[in-house]
Amino acid sequence: MNRKMIGYIIGSMVQMEAAFLLVPMLTALIYQERCLLVFLGTALFCVVLGSVIKGKKPENATIFSSEGYISVALCWIVMSICGAIPLYLSGYFPNPVDALFEIVSGFTTTGATILSDVEILPRAVLMWRSFSHWIGGMGVLVFMLAILPIAGASSMYLMRAESPGPSVGKLVPKVRSTAKILYVIYFCLTIAEMLLLVVAGCPLFDSVNLAFATAGTGGFGVLNSSAGDYNAVIQVILTIFMLLFGVNFNVYFLIYSRELKEAFRCEEARFYLGIVGGAILLITLNTYHMFHGVREALLHVSFQVASIITTTGFSTVDFDLWPEFSRTIMVILMFVGACAGSTGGGIKVSRIVIMAKTIKKELSVIAHPRTVRKTRFEGKQVEHEILRSINVFLISYLAIFMLSVLLISLDNLDAITNFTAVASTMNNIGPGLAKVGPTQNFALYSNLSKVVLIADMLIGRLEIFPMLILCTLGLRKKRWS
Amino acid sequence: MNRKMIGYIIGSMVQMEAAFLLVPMLTALIYQERCLLVFLGTALFCVVLGSVIKGKKPENATIFSSEGYISVALCWIVMSICGAIPLYLSGYFPNPVDALFEIVSGFTTTGATILSDVEILPRAVLMWRSFSHWIGGMGVLVFMLAILPIAGASSMYLMRAESPGPSVGKLVPKVRSTAKILYVIYFCLTIAEMLLLVVAGCPLFDSVNLAFATAGTGGFGVLNSSAGDYNAVIQVILTIFMLLFGVNFNVYFLIYSRELKEAFRCEEARFYLGIVGGAILLITLNTYHMFHGVREALLHVSFQVASIITTTGFSTVDFDLWPEFSRTIMVILMFVGACAGSTGGGIKVSRIVIMAKTIKKELSVIAHPRTVRKTRFEGKQVEHEILRSINVFLISYLAIFMLSVLLISLDNLDAITNFTAVASTMNNIGPGLAKVGPTQNFALYSNLSKVVLIADMLIGRLEIFPMLILCTLGLRKKRWS
Repeated sequence: MNRKMIGYIIGSMVQMEAAFLLVPMLTALIYQERCLLVFLGTALFCVVLGSVIKGKKPENATIFSSEGYISVALCWIVMSICGAIPLYLSGYFPNPVDALFEIVSGFTTTGATILSDVEILPRAVLMWRSFSHWIGGMGVLVFMLAILPIAGASSMYLMRAESPGPSVGKLVPKVRSTAKILYVIYFCLTIAEMLLLVVAGCPLFDSVNLAFATAGTGGFGVLNSSAGDYNAVIQVILTIFMLLFGVNFNVYFLIYSRELKEAFRCEEARFYLGIVGGAILLITLNTYHMFHGVREALLHVSFQVASIITTTGFSTVDFDLWPEFSRTIMVILMFVGACAGSTGGGIKVSRIVIMAKTIKKELSVIAHPRTVRKTRFEGKQVEHEILRSINVFLISYLAIFMLSVLLISLDNLDAITNFTAVASTMNNIGPGLAKVGPTQNFALYSNLSKVVLIADMLIGRLEIFPMLILCTLGLRKKRWS
Repeated sequence: MNRKMIGYIIGSMVQMEAAFLLVPMLTALIYQERCLLVFLGTALFCVVLGSVIKGKKPENATIFSSEGYISVALCWIVMSICGAIPLYLSGYFPNPVDALFEIVSGFTTTGATILSDVEILPRAVLMWRSFSHWIGGMGVLVFMLAILPIAGASSMYLMRAESPGPSVGKLVPKVRSTAKILYVIYFCLTIAEMLLLVVAGCPLFDSVNLAFATAGTGGFGVLNSSAGDYNAVIQVILTIFMLLFGVNFNVYFLIYSRELKEAFRCEEARFYLGIVGGAILLITLNTYHMFHGVREALLHVSFQVASIITTTGFSTVDFDLWPEFSRTIMVILMFVGACAGSTGGGIKVSRIVIMAKTIKKELSVIAHPRTVRKTRFEGKQVEHEILRSINVFLISYLAIFMLSVLLISLDNLDAITNFTAVASTMNNIGPGLAKVGPTQNFALYSNLSKVVLIADMLIGRLEIFPMLILCTLGLRKKRWS
């Protein structure tokens, strides 16, 4: 275990976080808010802490798979604790667990809040919440890899541990270039959304925040009504960009490289759009009587569907009031999630498609035992390793899900609230149903349950393994040498 | 596809069902009930129908894996339809779908009813319900294999398709002998329970019915209070026998063969008892304030835990009134289920254990990539085929579960009712929570939902593949030649 290198990575990340804190500091400066000092203090603390943890760059910069997972897990935990400090010191969060819940919800792009009134928050705090979505969406380590030559060839292990999806494709041979390209696409799409929102009549501050939150598929808003009070054009822009940020970024890279044919052939994106279309159709048929006409129904239904499948979590209407059939579809979408290689959470469309194809293959093997069939996805044969990792992912996912529901059930809330609270946090969505529905918040849970849900958000964002490996190694400490 | 042989198997099974109908006929004779004619008529119909379907025994009696699955799936469908006829003709069931629901619930050992008052039923009808549990518990085809030399060496495919668990172990080299041994153990345990119940003061008729229902881990009772009105000794006997029928029958065979050491080494049975013990402990701690003292709490908690994990479904108290933590444990137990190779349903303890071991192995592979590890279960290395089948089972299980919840949500009942209704039918338990809780019934669902739940019961009992293969082949009819 290359402990020095792990320390070096974490230290660099903490110093990076100091730089990120410039964004809320700038906001506080512009709006002349007193919380400027809080952010400044935290930033200085991060600089000092970072250099202490970092130490000198070790001569042996090589890390392996397990060290990659552990670095990523520790980075996210340390980043969350540092990020919670200004929230707690701002005085708007009653206790440290609540502040931690809020910032983990930010970095993991969940968007679940423990506040019932966000409009009383200083703008700098609102900006830090939204910006945390943007940082967490594409990944803080991916960002670091893009700008610092930190771990050489071993960087792949960091990128793989932080990026969502069953297999992480390098767009170009070098990890660093891949990370750069991803962030350039991410940055451009965010700016495009920001501009369009301003043009559509959205206030500048709101536009910046909404764009950050959409880009990371996060879901923190700056109004108590989430996105319900904006005009229809703004809502349509948000719907489109939520869907765009849920698409596998490979597609944008292919478009950028002018390989349009290849881009449109992306199997995952096609299934993803198919699921979105099907869900919108079914829910509109089931709920149009609740709206003034089919047009309004389509506007709101497509907004909520886009918001949930991309695991963003904005809302314009309270889907908890819809008929059970529509609510059930929404819960199913919570688990499906967006494409791998996007900023969205959930199980991911590619895993679902590969699982469905596996069943199909196995059935035809039973019916025709002598034929040899292979599962194919995106034009390539799915390797045994990928199938095995999906299998292990699914089992661990279910086990952690079950354990979490059991632990938070100690608070004696109803089963729908508990089930959807875990579904919403583990899939990094934001709202659930019943007492954690779109118009509610997570304040009613005890601190123990909040800690469980914080863990679920991190486990969901990092797709289980980094956290699981960290726990396993923590339990067998003697192997740390 | 050896269609003639499939017809021969189904025909023989229908004739066998005519013989089974002697049990309710005898009951009707003893209690001088008018429904005797209904059962007699159905039996005669079965004899005629059976000989029509059966035809002459085909010269080529060889069948393969897919034909085994299809025979089993069709047998269970035809058996259910024939079995529903006397229920419908008895006049106590408002429509044919309800009668079919009731008998499928019987054969699949689910025990979910659509009746709110079972005490008005004739005793012959009660007996047919309970006896259907006994037939379905060990399997009608396994019974047929035990007494008829029907398909020679190909019998293995029938046995494998009907018996629960990831791998079906032959106790002895010959399938027919294995089937015989299983039924002898089953028969002896049932008789033992019956006698003990009588000794404990249970009326004879109730004892016979309860023993049939416990043996098959079914759950139909003869009183509206399920098992709540019997004395504590009877309840303890039921608890013990529910647990005994949830143990892998291999254990009894080993005990019978005097291999006691081997019997006590059975990993699945030990995990099963461990889960039972843990659940009883946690729920008792969580609910003892609701009872008069710890002793009463232990009595009732162990009864409900045994009833749910073995997927029997009797109840002595309404666990839907327990705190959420206990209710959540009960729902988790619904999915765990009993041991493979027992008469219980659910996912099965062996699958759960193997899945847990897979995770453990994968984590240690990530941490120490160069070591080679294999998953071991019951002292043997788990073969790749078993892992793959568990994987496919889990994915199909989740997909069918989700689709079923979605379809029945069209009735616009609440999510807890829908979720636990599917959990209860697919795992062949009986009661769920909320509107399908232990004191409720399934009458409130529409006929469409009842058909979905009927399918779920059959899919759960036959562990998915037979039904799935039947559907797949039904869709591609040209391949039937």
